[in-house]
Amino acid sequence: MSSLPIIHAREQIENSNGTRELLDLEFSNGERRRYERSIQKGHGAVMIAAMPDKDTVLLIKEYAAGTHRYELCLPKGRIDAGETVLQAANRELKEEAGFGAHSLRVLRSITLAPTYMSHAIDLVLAEDLYPERLAGDEPELLEVIPWRLDRLHELVLREEFSEGRSMAALLVIKEMLSARP
Amino acid sequence: MSSLPIIHAREQIENSNGTRELLDLEFSNGERRRYERSIQKGHGAVMIAAMPDKDTVLLIKEYAAGTHRYELCLPKGRIDAGETVLQAANRELKEEAGFGAHSLRVLRSITLAPTYMSHAIDLVLAEDLYPERLAGDEPELLEVIPWRLDRLHELVLREEFSEGRSMAALLVIKEMLSARP
Repeated sequence: MSSLPIIHAREQIENSNGTRELLDLEFSNGERRRYERSIQKGHGAVMIAAMPDKDTVLLIKEYAAGTHRYELCLPKGRIDAGETVLQAANRELKEEAGFGAHSLRVLRSITLAPTYMSHAIDLVLAEDLYPERLAGDEPELLEVIPWRLDRLHELVLREEFSEGRSMAALLVIKEMLSARP
Repeated sequence: MSSLPIIHAREQIENSNGTRELLDLEFSNGERRRYERSIQKGHGAVMIAAMPDKDTVLLIKEYAAGTHRYELCLPKGRIDAGETVLQAANRELKEEAGFGAHSLRVLRSITLAPTYMSHAIDLVLAEDLYPERLAGDEPELLEVIPWRLDRLHELVLREEFSEGRSMAALLVIKEMLSARP
């Protein structure tokens, strides 16, 4: 295992999209490089794997401006100032899927593009669900689609199920649950 | 299924990071919103699931500036001008892992954050591998780590295996291959 590059200098540039940082790096073999990375704004983000039973996870269908189509994905959103990760998870779940959860647990952090972005999202497992809807900032009510974990082979063929982090969350859920006694 | 929002107007703003686009949208329920998205530059990107045998995929360990740590991930890179997706996949595989592939096949597109980014990467399955190394722009030789698909439950517990798209690729591979006769 190589030791981490030494950061000789860093320079931050603010713009309307957030913060870019220029790094002057020296790798352990002596190679010197300039890298650029984007720094995540705000208080973090949370993605929720809500399971009405041990075989099923709730997907939502949401308009995605980046691809200009409706995407199947897991509920997610930004953590507000003063909120814990689990509070944010329960709020987003109520806003986007119309459920709250009695049991909430952070499973792990998932990064977006770690080579050039600091962005990460906390994946929360939500179980023991109850119906409750909170008004969010969504322009329309989102369709909720329960999906069985033993039918993921069909889901990964769907063009509109494309988001890396949502797929990642389902891998984590399926692999962690399969190892659970 | 709702019909797609109508785009009443769009405005592009160029900056050093790429292109931002402001959209004036009308949802099918009449809600009017302004959305912003980031437009991917260049000719696309490719991620390679290289399998030396039907049970194993090759991971690389690469320095990631966004998280300032070494990350386990799949080989990937940008598609150069004039390259096909499969040519780019084979080149990146040779540069990052020291293998070429006689069999290359695009499995699907994976998006980064489709609600606000257009960015997508083509996942390519590479089989029938042979040793060949090309010099790339990497500052150091990358460690290659073969990982068995029946041990993904251990991989998803590793902090340094955090990238959503790499996890997504392994879900796609495992689910598609399990459905293959």
